[in-house]
Amino acid sequence: MKKTLLLAAFALACVCAPAWGQPPADCKPNALNIPSAPYPCIFPDNRVMFRVEAPDAQKVIVRLGPGFEMSKGPDGLWYVTTTPQVVGFHYYTLSIDGAVVADRATRTFFGSGFYNSGIEIPDPDGDYFTLKNVPHGQVRQRWYYSTVTAQWRRAYVYTPPDYDANIKAKYPVLYLFHGWGENEEGWHVQGHVDVIMDNLIAQQKARPFIIVMDNLNAVKPGESAALYAARGTITQAVPQPPPAPGAPGAPGAAGRGAAAGRGAMRPLASPVFTEMMLTDLIPMVERTFRVTPGRENRAMAGLSMGGMQTFTTALGNLDKFAYIGGFSGSSGGRGGFDPKTSNGGVFADAAAFNKQVKVLFLGIGSVEGPGTKTFSDELTKAGIRNVYFESPGTAHEWLTWRRSFKDFAPRLFR
Amino acid sequence: MKKTLLLAAFALACVCAPAWGQPPADCKPNALNIPSAPYPCIFPDNRVMFRVEAPDAQKVIVRLGPGFEMSKGPDGLWYVTTTPQVVGFHYYTLSIDGAVVADRATRTFFGSGFYNSGIEIPDPDGDYFTLKNVPHGQVRQRWYYSTVTAQWRRAYVYTPPDYDANIKAKYPVLYLFHGWGENEEGWHVQGHVDVIMDNLIAQQKARPFIIVMDNLNAVKPGESAALYAARGTITQAVPQPPPAPGAPGAPGAAGRGAAAGRGAMRPLASPVFTEMMLTDLIPMVERTFRVTPGRENRAMAGLSMGGMQTFTTALGNLDKFAYIGGFSGSSGGRGGFDPKTSNGGVFADAAAFNKQVKVLFLGIGSVEGPGTKTFSDELTKAGIRNVYFESPGTAHEWLTWRRSFKDFAPRLFR
Repeated sequence: MKKTLLLAAFALACVCAPAWGQPPADCKPNALNIPSAPYPCIFPDNRVMFRVEAPDAQKVIVRLGPGFEMSKGPDGLWYVTTTPQVVGFHYYTLSIDGAVVADRATRTFFGSGFYNSGIEIPDPDGDYFTLKNVPHGQVRQRWYYSTVTAQWRRAYVYTPPDYDANIKAKYPVLYLFHGWGENEEGWHVQGHVDVIMDNLIAQQKARPFIIVMDNLNAVKPGESAALYAARGTITQAVPQPPPAPGAPGAPGAAGRGAAAGRGAMRPLASPVFTEMMLTDLIPMVERTFRVTPGRENRAMAGLSMGGMQTFTTALGNLDKFAYIGGFSGSSGGRGGFDPKTSNGGVFADAAAFNKQVKVLFLGIGSVEGPGTKTFSDELTKAGIRNVYFESPGTAHEWLTWRRSFKDFAPRLFR
Repeated sequence: MKKTLLLAAFALACVCAPAWGQPPADCKPNALNIPSAPYPCIFPDNRVMFRVEAPDAQKVIVRLGPGFEMSKGPDGLWYVTTTPQVVGFHYYTLSIDGAVVADRATRTFFGSGFYNSGIEIPDPDGDYFTLKNVPHGQVRQRWYYSTVTAQWRRAYVYTPPDYDANIKAKYPVLYLFHGWGENEEGWHVQGHVDVIMDNLIAQQKARPFIIVMDNLNAVKPGESAALYAARGTITQAVPQPPPAPGAPGAPGAAGRGAAAGRGAMRPLASPVFTEMMLTDLIPMVERTFRVTPGRENRAMAGLSMGGMQTFTTALGNLDKFAYIGGFSGSSGGRGGFDPKTSNGGVFADAAAFNKQVKVLFLGIGSVEGPGTKTFSDELTKAGIRNVYFESPGTAHEWLTWRRSFKDFAPRLFR
């Protein structure tokens, strides 16, 4: 009982900034911290200082990149300052005596299949994903029932700023998907896609369009979900090249929410998801929102596993999609590409493909390796028109995908 | 390096259900678990079985109610089964060698100022907050700039199912607020207010109306937020009666996200919030949505601290609000009520008050103590018409507030 009372007192102390003390003056609180939490904080050179309360722990590690072991200070709290971090959003967790948990000093973000902490290293070029005094759209949560999965599903739908005012206007739609272990929250929570769109529209760089963000997880009744590694999901044994430092699969990358453990069985895309999307999601969207009909007003894109799903769903249904984007995830780049047979032979007739597909976009972070560039070159060699975008200095992370989206969105529905 | 690789492997193992093993057949996974996580699970008698991976920890406690100390099993994992729990939503955390953290087996929920784990004990009478095959409204995220706080703020706005179809219809608005240490996510994430409304509307028990959910935290530039205990917030030293078991302030209640540490300084309501609401929020809502104008089409309600804010803001501005609700939080019940002087004398002329205020609603959980009932009786004695609603068997928790809302909503805008 005494312990419980102590814990209650501790809970109060922890949420009050003054009890935590103040970090060095040039260490600014992470933008993703809970209200009033001064740690983690970020120095001007992008080193990050963490502080954790774990009074009886023997070992505390910040799992960000390679991992940083903390030391207990004279005040009984654990501290560490990292090496300089790459700009952008990173997932991280703590290991407290071997238990991997979120740091409760920050908001939480769904990645690698659970809710992690997050840190946002300020990007000097991040103006485009910063809230500004421009007209704002909305992100709308919409529940719908899937007849294919026999479950309720949650979609988020971005509507542009003028949607409610121009009540007779119809809008084209981009279906936009998250990566492995993430969910339908990713693009507007981690990705700020709504803010990027509001800014692009205000600058007249992108046409106003609707963005539908849904969850890639789709299994039939009775099938196991097991995080996209279930029956009903196409998996493929892929020999992986040694990953670049900081890239997904690289040592320590797990702490960044990258696709830890990929390799042996890599989930590519789910035919059940395609069926669900065509049977349930698109009809719900077109019933609920004012949507311009037809394939030339419909785009599909995604990051990582969402890109692979896009290449499966959209390339397999070109009567329904005219714009296709894969950010750090597409169908190729792993060798063995043959324009005559790959992807069901969709690239065999380049002229016909180029006429149908208005934009085929391939985005990647420069640290992620050459696979996507190779694929783009192979496509080009086969006569397939495509856009290759490379985000300088970033890995398999959200800044790569924000930048990819910013380059992709202005190309849509022209 | 070896440690890091081990951690990466651990991260993978943890998100895959098969590696976790299966709980007893009659222990059903908590509805708030991350996908595929079998623990925590709930037995038919509402005992909860937890399992945690903390390989090198010395002591692990599940902080739910009085706290439950875990034991290490032969498989090296920590286990505990609790006593039967009350139905409804409960926040909980883990203490791992003294570090208070969320259990990453569940989704996370903002309460007590940080992201907790959550457990939902099935309510046999919970049909009203269950997703059904009825027309569905939307919950819309809308960013807006506050001139009063000089900050961007996020509001969530529920629009009823027919909002986008009846493009000429206007709707009355309820402004609905969270409790201490919670935020604008609370009512639709923990409270399922959108689902409750969809169901009430489908049954023609409630009129379709808009619900605006915003954050009570509002401080002027340069002022410290410090979780609502800042300058600019009215606080009041309140002698507290000994709390009932399980009530807020009771030993162990902190683990449920109750207002741990209340007593010495209890935040009541913020005049800055009132100014922000009247200056920024309401005008933004009325510019952005199709709102029926006038006080008789505007309601304000909230839970706990949100109820106290409602009583301050709405009773102080009866020219703007005709419907008022406080769920487990109002302005009275602590003794010293004087109808002639309390709340700025707004109750002094009962006939005038009853003419202005269409509904004055007071909700409470039966376990929370007699304060609200006393206040209701005092009001009635003073001739003030009011509705008293008591949720049987529940404490200062979300099931009390879901039930309160379900009773309150049908009374609005009649």
